[in-house]
Amino acid sequence: MTSEDAATPGAATLGVAMVGHSFMGAAHSQAWSVAPRFFDLPLAPRMVVVAGRRPDAAEAAARRYGWAGSTADWRSVLQRDDVDLVDVCTPGDTHAEIAVAALDAGKHVLCEKPLANSVEEAETMVAAAERAAAHGVRATVGFTYRRVPAIALARRLVADGRIGTVRHVRAQYLQDWIADESAPMSWRLDKERAGSGALGDIGAHVVDLAQHVTGELLTGVSGLLETFVHERPLPGDGGGDLRGTAGEGTGRVTVDDAAVFTARLAGGGLATFEATRFAHGRKNAIRLEVNGSRGSLAFDFEDMNVLHYYDATEDPVVAGFRRIYVTEPDHPYGGAWWPAGHGLGYEHAFTHQVVDLLGALAEGRDPEPTFADGLQVQRVMAAVEASSASGCAWQAL
Amino acid sequence: MTSEDAATPGAATLGVAMVGHSFMGAAHSQAWSVAPRFFDLPLAPRMVVVAGRRPDAAEAAARRYGWAGSTADWRSVLQRDDVDLVDVCTPGDTHAEIAVAALDAGKHVLCEKPLANSVEEAETMVAAAERAAAHGVRATVGFTYRRVPAIALARRLVADGRIGTVRHVRAQYLQDWIADESAPMSWRLDKERAGSGALGDIGAHVVDLAQHVTGELLTGVSGLLETFVHERPLPGDGGGDLRGTAGEGTGRVTVDDAAVFTARLAGGGLATFEATRFAHGRKNAIRLEVNGSRGSLAFDFEDMNVLHYYDATEDPVVAGFRRIYVTEPDHPYGGAWWPAGHGLGYEHAFTHQVVDLLGALAEGRDPEPTFADGLQVQRVMAAVEASSASGCAWQAL
Amino acid sequence: MTSEDAATPGAATLGVAMVGHSFMGAAHSQAWSVAPRFFDLPLAPRMVVVAGRRPDAAEAAARRYGWAGSTADWRSVLQRDDVDLVDVCTPGDTHAEIAVAALDAGKHVLCEKPLANSVEEAETMVAAAERAAAHGVRATVGFTYRRVPAIALARRLVADGRIGTVRHVRAQYLQDWIADESAPMSWRLDKERAGSGALGDIGAHVVDLAQHVTGELLTGVSGLLETFVHERPLPGDGGGDLRGTAGEGTGRVTVDDAAVFTARLAGGGLATFEATRFAHGRKNAIRLEVNGSRGSLAFDFEDMNVLHYYDATEDPVVAGFRRIYVTEPDHPYGGAWWPAGHGLGYEHAFTHQVVDLLGALAEGRDPEPTFADGLQVQRVMAAVEASSASGCAWQAL
Amino acid sequence: MTSEDAATPGAATLGVAMVGHSFMGAAHSQAWSVAPRFFDLPLAPRMVVVAGRRPDAAEAAARRYGWAGSTADWRSVLQRDDVDLVDVCTPGDTHAEIAVAALDAGKHVLCEKPLANSVEEAETMVAAAERAAAHGVRATVGFTYRRVPAIALARRLVADGRIGTVRHVRAQYLQDWIADESAPMSWRLDKERAGSGALGDIGAHVVDLAQHVTGELLTGVSGLLETFVHERPLPGDGGGDLRGTAGEGTGRVTVDDAAVFTARLAGGGLATFEATRFAHGRKNAIRLEVNGSRGSLAFDFEDMNVLHYYDATEDPVVAGFRRIYVTEPDHPYGGAWWPAGHGLGYEHAFTHQVVDLLGALAEGRDPEPTFADGLQVQRVMAAVEASSASGCAWQAL
Repeated sequence: MTSEDAATPGAATLGVAMVGHSFMGAAHSQAWSVAPRFFDLPLAPRMVVVAGRRPDAAEAAARRYGWAGSTADWRSVLQRDDVDLVDVCTPGDTHAEIAVAALDAGKHVLCEKPLANSVEEAETMVAAAERAAAHGVRATVGFTYRRVPAIALARRLVADGRIGTVRHVRAQYLQDWIADESAPMSWRLDKERAGSGALGDIGAHVVDLAQHVTGELLTGVSGLLETFVHERPLPGDGGGDLRGTAGEGTGRVTVDDAAVFTARLAGGGLATFEATRFAHGRKNAIRLEVNGSRGSLAFDFEDMNVLHYYDATEDPVVAGFRRIYVTEPDHPYGGAWWPAGHGLGYEHAFTHQVVDLLGALAEGRDPEPTFADGLQVQRVMAAVEASSASGCAWQAL
Repeated sequence: MTSEDAATPGAATLGVAMVGHSFMGAAHSQAWSVAPRFFDLPLAPRMVVVAGRRPDAAEAAARRYGWAGSTADWRSVLQRDDVDLVDVCTPGDTHAEIAVAALDAGKHVLCEKPLANSVEEAETMVAAAERAAAHGVRATVGFTYRRVPAIALARRLVADGRIGTVRHVRAQYLQDWIADESAPMSWRLDKERAGSGALGDIGAHVVDLAQHVTGELLTGVSGLLETFVHERPLPGDGGGDLRGTAGEGTGRVTVDDAAVFTARLAGGGLATFEATRFAHGRKNAIRLEVNGSRGSLAFDFEDMNVLHYYDATEDPVVAGFRRIYVTEPDHPYGGAWWPAGHGLGYEHAFTHQVVDLLGALAEGRDPEPTFADGLQVQRVMAAVEASSASGCAWQAL
Repeated sequence: MTSEDAATPGAATLGVAMVGHSFMGAAHSQAWSVAPRFFDLPLAPRMVVVAGRRPDAAEAAARRYGWAGSTADWRSVLQRDDVDLVDVCTPGDTHAEIAVAALDAGKHVLCEKPLANSVEEAETMVAAAERAAAHGVRATVGFTYRRVPAIALARRLVADGRIGTVRHVRAQYLQDWIADESAPMSWRLDKERAGSGALGDIGAHVVDLAQHVTGELLTGVSGLLETFVHERPLPGDGGGDLRGTAGEGTGRVTVDDAAVFTARLAGGGLATFEATRFAHGRKNAIRLEVNGSRGSLAFDFEDMNVLHYYDATEDPVVAGFRRIYVTEPDHPYGGAWWPAGHGLGYEHAFTHQVVDLLGALAEGRDPEPTFADGLQVQRVMAAVEASSASGCAWQAL
Repeated sequence: MTSEDAATPGAATLGVAMVGHSFMGAAHSQAWSVAPRFFDLPLAPRMVVVAGRRPDAAEAAARRYGWAGSTADWRSVLQRDDVDLVDVCTPGDTHAEIAVAALDAGKHVLCEKPLANSVEEAETMVAAAERAAAHGVRATVGFTYRRVPAIALARRLVADGRIGTVRHVRAQYLQDWIADESAPMSWRLDKERAGSGALGDIGAHVVDLAQHVTGELLTGVSGLLETFVHERPLPGDGGGDLRGTAGEGTGRVTVDDAAVFTARLAGGGLATFEATRFAHGRKNAIRLEVNGSRGSLAFDFEDMNVLHYYDATEDPVVAGFRRIYVTEPDHPYGGAWWPAGHGLGYEHAFTHQVVDLLGALAEGRDPEPTFADGLQVQRVMAAVEASSASGCAWQAL
């Protein structure tokens, strides 16, 4: 981190290299460039270089998203003195290799979720993070939804004891992008690259959210996975992330289309989880409900600026779920943006992630969630798979 | 059934005896008396007699709810020629005895759910129903929520193929009436009388609804039961159903407070179920969501006149969950009541149950759901309990 | 009122005669018969006789709805000693004649709204009510929506000062039953019989609700009326209230299809009103919002068991509109029906009206709203018409 | 416009100067910098200079928001060859002077709404725009909410005839930022600077939206203005836009706190409007409902990614308001951002405004809305004020 003139005058700067520039890369780029405009940052990020396999695509991404340069060789960025942090936005099969190398090269790492495609890989990453920590090098995993203001408020209310002892969690991540049987293949449907399907791609988010908001880890699970459509047309446009069109030939879906599981929380509560891409009409319905001994919370990302909160200690005559429109100055991240009532969108959570990360780095704290947190989620995923493979048998964690 | 002057002039009549007159008895009484006012019935019900253990209470119930007479001896009603049907509204531990005796005495039976407190009892009831059927005597179990117009519409849409192959069911019955740890004991928390807790009392409803609406049976389950509060104050008012106040001493809760389970549908879909009385702020949230290959449905009893329907075959530009306000003349049960837009309440479903039952009896059909349907739900409950007792191991049905 | 055996043993009774037996007659009949089953009444209603122009239809209504007898001559019921109260459920053009005669005959009167078809008629009714009051004979007008529990709760919260000084009212009654231009004529579209259109039929309800809930009268209005469709097919089925089908020939619509107006409340607040039958998709959307200096309320009859309440004195971090599900024992009318969470329907408000009316009669109080209240609403309607006829000029009240 | 290397390689560029850098300046800056990242633009904007009265504040804004330079003299930017467009983000009392000067200097102008503080000023601006148009210089006014995807979809559905002839518009802009009587003064409450209060600040938006979405102008109005709180504490922090804290002394509120008015649309429909900052619990509730002969639309900015649409031509059994989550690729502006289901926030509409403006400039079209559109809205505001001053008398437009 060098001291240099920037958006926040006089602040030290942090050179950032990003690897990968697809959907997540676009979101991360936006975050790095927008954060200094709305937040007073203790460290000013410099968008140094973006790495991608195809040089022309990487260069186009650099121009579009405001990176100073591009490279087709992600390893080269590890050699650069002007790079302090590597932001890993590639598919899950490359996370371990890139993150470990970056950490070993002394670069902080922000790694997209899921941390890895297997528990083993995740363990090597945690080991690397521990080695790096000894030198003040930090690692964090991108469970970005924690930074949605309504979720951050939910966490705050639980931590403040507002809902008491947690008895129930209902967590769902419902999408419909492949509910149509003729929707084309994507790397996200290929176990080699994606590790798992709905479970790892979107289920991981709600596992993290459930644990984060309640402040409790899962102690065991019983799960059931299913693949509804085994063969799909290959994408016609050569790649295909979330918006491909069908081409010729078919490919085999090797991941789960949907996952359901029950779980126990450390405090004794019961939880149900569901992750699916086959819920027609649900576009990005991350739904989290928590019932405690003193109150309840409910959230749905399709109305992302709202948190519903029920205070059971009130007079029943006026008690009811409150629709808290989480845009007030005193709400998490609230004061930095617009006046109350002017809602935020999807990508703002990425900006908040950058803000929190820069704060932790400047203060010499471990940013959260750590790689260990990511590994724990990975273990939950693995336990669900193991349970599904063994007649739903309980898997302790 | 004798032909006699009644609300529907010239129609044959059906003499009804009701056993039990608490919460369910009030609802059933209202149904028997209101049905003839709004529906053209092929059989006119006569409210002959109500039976209850305490003579004075039974007589008071008779006066209040419009029964011609009362008795403290439920067996006596089986001898009466003017009684054609016995309506069993007692706690679950007496269902089998009363229903079997009534059927064997040649009386039709409407039995509240759950059918019985155990699979064994339920089996004896099914056997009795089969014996009775040979003589044209009919038996049905009161899964009343099937008759909520929005649920009946959901069933119709599924049967018409509007949502295609079912892939997901999300079924919850959430209440909070004992979420407060100091809420008093009730017979509903005593395994001897209630058979089971949240699972049998309210979970049974959503199991029936899920199967009824999808037209598919569950083929297996994996479940988890929990009792959060083991000791509660005894009720102070001598009885205590759902509204008791605390008295002296404590009693032991011997049923589950909450149940969560995953399941498979016969057509290959995945389902999650939850039944709890510990969801603060949810008063009677019977929630059912179904996702199919062509569309989706969603219902919540706390907004009981509404069904949400998503048609995935539409142009995505104008597709969205439709809030169908199920009060149109062409909606199930719609034309009989008020003009469109004038919603119904909880007890109307009981009236519809009477209407459907009378129709089946008049036409010599088996009313639905049958005792066999009730037994099947009982087996699901037992399987969930068995799974919970064996580390969530899958229980095939 | 004679003392006689009834549902409430030992209670004095009240003989009721009902005039008219269409939509409103059905609702009132249901109320008279259901009230004693769920409420402990100080006076037991006896459903003595129903009057209607066509003897066979009146007799059929008597049988269906549980009236002891019927007559084609409404005047005859005024002579009967066993009739204590006359319930006027006819179209508005006959209210004055029937109600005045009944009051002058010493019968209490419950008269459907609007009180009359003109201010002049309403004034004669108020005069009759005043004459009758001298003899302990009572008169009330059926602004039934006041008895919806959520509305009654709204009134209570305002009266308790929960929302402070009222600054805004937004009141709408939106329907769509004649939004289709080919919907047939009805007496409700004929000025001779109905007096006015959307303004008097449904607008009157929201004027009453706005004044009742805020506890403030309107002090002036500026309004605009419109008839969108002037010619409609005659109904094919001989009468046609709200559900007719088109027959041959056309008739002229002589009332307003829609009314919009602004108003001032006595306390200085501003109000907007709208009544229309041309709001496609809104079936019975009675919407009332009140904003005060300390909080706000919002209600929509299409979700009739819910009141939304915002408490502006709370910490903004947890403030939000609360969705109060108005089914708790301590909510208005709540304890009499079902356990919390089991919602009521449209006709329950009529039962509550009967309960409140019987309570007032038993205690020798004037039931509310009085005929004077009905006249005041009539004057508001007249002022809106006058304003519309004079370029929206302000009409003080 | 010079051709130069930029985010969109090879595209011509457009030099932009912004005057004012408060709330609106932040939103506009974000738009200018973000647009090239997500949209393929025919013209690449260059953020040349920001002007503000206080040099240090202007320079800080330049650094923060990414402007190449700053100046305290807005007139100086009109001399610069590298400035092609002036973006006017100042309070309304300076719009006319700046915009006219800019247009006369041959600079395109984007001017925040309301266009001016009076009809007269607005007329001079329209005249300037007409003069400029002769030289290919364009002017547009920032009714940004038109660019919210759900609103743009509403406009498209109306234009496609989906709701038929418009019969009703219900338009409200409800806030609560000064509902607390002790909230401090702001320039927005000073008639000299703001021109009008709720009417011009927020009412102007809903007038524009109502006209834009229906495609019909208002032909007359009848209105009522009110100031509830006449004296307020002066702001303690020297300026105070929307978030000031109270200081010493008081100032006089010289604008309206709230406005209500009725109106007619050119096609014969009726409309009601309301603008207030006194609706506790409503933070930025821009609500628009349109009822037509074939269907209805409803929107609330507090759930800004959703449009509700009712198709009255459908089978009533499955008809209902559809909750369209306006994030699909084929929705307005949809494809450029994130996958379906990932909602946008407040400032995205400003980005869309830039995108549409650049498209119009590149194609030599007048961007919409024009200054003439802005003037028409100004005339509506003036008519409402005139009506309020004359006993609500109808003011034809």
